Amino acid sequence: MPHLLSLTDLSVHTIEELLTRAQAFQDRGAEQRVREPIFVANLFFEPSTRTRFSFEVAEKRLGLNALNFDDTTSSTQKGETLYDTLRVLEELGAKAAVIRHSEQGFYEPLQDRLHLSLINAGDGSGHHPSQTLLDLLTIQQEFSGFKGLTVAMIGDLRHSRVARSNAEILTKLGASVILSGPPEWHAPEFPGTYVSIEEAIETADVVNLLRIQTERHDGEGLFTKETYHQAYGLTLEREKRMKAHAIIMHPAPFNRGVEIASELVECRRSRIFKQMHNGVHIRMAILEWALGLNIIPQHFQLSI
Amino acid sequence: MPHLLSLTDLSVHTIEELLTRAQAFQDRGAEQRVREPIFVANLFFEPSTRTRFSFEVAEKRLGLNALNFDDTTSSTQKGETLYDTLRVLEELGAKAAVIRHSEQGFYEPLQDRLHLSLINAGDGSGHHPSQTLLDLLTIQQEFSGFKGLTVAMIGDLRHSRVARSNAEILTKLGASVILSGPPEWHAPEFPGTYVSIEEAIETADVVNLLRIQTERHDGEGLFTKETYHQAYGLTLEREKRMKAHAIIMHPAPFNRGVEIASELVECRRSRIFKQMHNGVHIRMAILEWALGLNIIPQHFQLSI
Amino acid sequence: MPHLLSLTDLSVHTIEELLTRAQAFQDRGAEQRVREPIFVANLFFEPSTRTRFSFEVAEKRLGLNALNFDDTTSSTQKGETLYDTLRVLEELGAKAAVIRHSEQGFYEPLQDRLHLSLINAGDGSGHHPSQTLLDLLTIQQEFSGFKGLTVAMIGDLRHSRVARSNAEILTKLGASVILSGPPEWHAPEFPGTYVSIEEAIETADVVNLLRIQTERHDGEGLFTKETYHQAYGLTLEREKRMKAHAIIMHPAPFNRGVEIASELVECRRSRIFKQMHNGVHIRMAILEWALGLNIIPQHFQLSI
Repeated sequence: MPHLLSLTDLSVHTIEELLTRAQAFQDRGAEQRVREPIFVANLFFEPSTRTRFSFEVAEKRLGLNALNFDDTTSSTQKGETLYDTLRVLEELGAKAAVIRHSEQGFYEPLQDRLHLSLINAGDGSGHHPSQTLLDLLTIQQEFSGFKGLTVAMIGDLRHSRVARSNAEILTKLGASVILSGPPEWHAPEFPGTYVSIEEAIETADVVNLLRIQTERHDGEGLFTKETYHQAYGLTLEREKRMKAHAIIMHPAPFNRGVEIASELVECRRSRIFKQMHNGVHIRMAILEWALGLNIIPQHFQLSI
Repeated sequence: MPHLLSLTDLSVHTIEELLTRAQAFQDRGAEQRVREPIFVANLFFEPSTRTRFSFEVAEKRLGLNALNFDDTTSSTQKGETLYDTLRVLEELGAKAAVIRHSEQGFYEPLQDRLHLSLINAGDGSGHHPSQTLLDLLTIQQEFSGFKGLTVAMIGDLRHSRVARSNAEILTKLGASVILSGPPEWHAPEFPGTYVSIEEAIETADVVNLLRIQTERHDGEGLFTKETYHQAYGLTLEREKRMKAHAIIMHPAPFNRGVEIASELVECRRSRIFKQMHNGVHIRMAILEWALGLNIIPQHFQLSI
Repeated sequence: MPHLLSLTDLSVHTIEELLTRAQAFQDRGAEQRVREPIFVANLFFEPSTRTRFSFEVAEKRLGLNALNFDDTTSSTQKGETLYDTLRVLEELGAKAAVIRHSEQGFYEPLQDRLHLSLINAGDGSGHHPSQTLLDLLTIQQEFSGFKGLTVAMIGDLRHSRVARSNAEILTKLGASVILSGPPEWHAPEFPGTYVSIEEAIETADVVNLLRIQTERHDGEGLFTKETYHQAYGLTLEREKRMKAHAIIMHPAPFNRGVEIASELVECRRSRIFKQMHNGVHIRMAILEWALGLNIIPQHFQLSI
């Protein structure tokens, strides 16, 4: 069974098929649910609300059985390694494991040693492929494609596992990526051009704000909430200078009054909650693909 | 979809219909379960066994899907607000949210801003409507009604979210409410007459004991366990002076040897575990009502 | 409904039927799943991965509903006793409770007072009957029986709840049990003969290693990892002196490089992950028996 570790591993064709499939789940639901008991383990070693629950909802909507692993009550407390824990879950019947872990690249030593499908739900400052896919779906729903679009990634670029994936894949799909944020948090290895915050706001079709990853900083107090908001946040004033049709995105959880003015979170441009909604259908498509299922018999078969 | 925040919001007619419906679930079960995947989120920010699990059992008996939110592993750890967390769950597909929270009136700023049904499972020292409903069902099963009954609420009146609701609604339904307990814990705003503990015990048809809410006191050590028991507890001796047909109730968890002599917890008068049993069917009725479902096609349709 | 507290309570006949039934579930699955909602509560007061999840998988494969009780978020935080917690779960509809608890014999005061089936999933240094049953199934699959086999139990005998049950029941079933380990951890009351680690390794058909239960020692630092490994561990060198057909077992979680050389965990002799796999089917058989179910209509009916 295939793993989903980062989008770098997937062909553009596969990405497009996953988006098509997610849209189909959104439009028509999963008409037939799985009948045999198929188990998926959810292992979240870092806090999560939307990723964890959107995977759980996706699993249940497909008729899969979720096993919710909790770090604090498991044998990892007795020193069991992640590999051994996954081998256990594999023996108990899990066909896939959805994992969020603070260690970047946690899956590297695992991927060739397990017979279940590993789905990376966020590894440290590394990747977060299902988030990138739902971002792509959100953009595609808005603009029907990616070619010629300008997408601004703004904020804590260096610690964000979303920024890198999004910048890479959007560039590959034909969008122009522009980057903006405090120089201390620049990430030179990303594709894209650095511009001022004002230029980013005024030229982007998609303003993709990034969360300040305070839990990944070593207490480097560059900003107060207010000084960050004034320097790099989407203020009420900046929003007015966005292009007429431009939209706002944020992977969330967002800090109100920091990356974005609280009043803008649900404004007409905001697709922030739409992103979460799309997340369920993206994760249904990922699980169907990873498990080799074919949930609804219909014309656009998944031929991966 | 309607919220269930406190019983004050419900008409007597709606309360009666919920009781009838709960009795029907108890007598005949939920013959048809929901087929479409419908999600209900359970968010317990304070410890709970019976309320949390009786909602979960009720959900599963109706064929609903439970999403069990855990504060300690969610993005509330990253500072996400309750409103934003609920908006996430709404976007992921939750149609109702069952919430227990330490903050009294936590739902006030939420109720007009969400499209899911909010079900208050206890807010600080505020309300606990599903507990009051199951108390009503327990009394109704015993006495076939409320008119003319004398119900004594005894103990920590001021900090109890059960006492207030029960006193209000029982009065409305025609019962006489008498109150007893340490003067420091009196709650002058409740309907009902204060009487001595001895008069309460001897004249009540229902002796409704209340838990000492030590987690809501600021270390005010008015009593030891033993002195409370002697002063306001249901001792073996006091039980003998209850009316022949009178019953004992307690919202639980009870402190054995404090509010009630340990030997009386399961005595012939006690309806304490019956209350818990009724709690499942009450919560089935609440969920059916809140979600606008109609589980069993039968003569007494819910016409709310 | 019967309890499963220790294997001492079960007849050899019942044990054999449970093994037969587990094998049937492994070979053919549970063809018919339960249709009525039947609830099983899982209460793990100590960390667990494999026991907890194999019970949960077993429950779901049988079509049962799992209620996962979490000590840290329940009313045990408000001082509720284990008996009262179980009475609550019983009233809410649980027909069985799977319990792991640090207190040896926690079930003694409970067993005659509850109407649900108690399934002991490990009590302190006491018993762990489902682990012993899955060990028996693993041995039976290998050797088609127990008579004449030599089984070596090696390591922390005194604190292991697996060692005692295994030694007792294997002796009863006709196997020879030999014991080896640090004298400080000997358990004189076990059936079996103490031998040197070298003799144990060279004469056993089954080398059953035991986990060092550091959480049950009072900081008695008898060994470093390395000195234990050299003195009583299954080193690469010792494995070479095992009998040609001999197998390795361990209840897990194992400490790599302590009880067993890391390289041997998945060697051709190791049945460690097979044990976990068998655990699911054993627990299906236990639940079917405890709940009085009869899942698949087939020739070998359970006549207990």
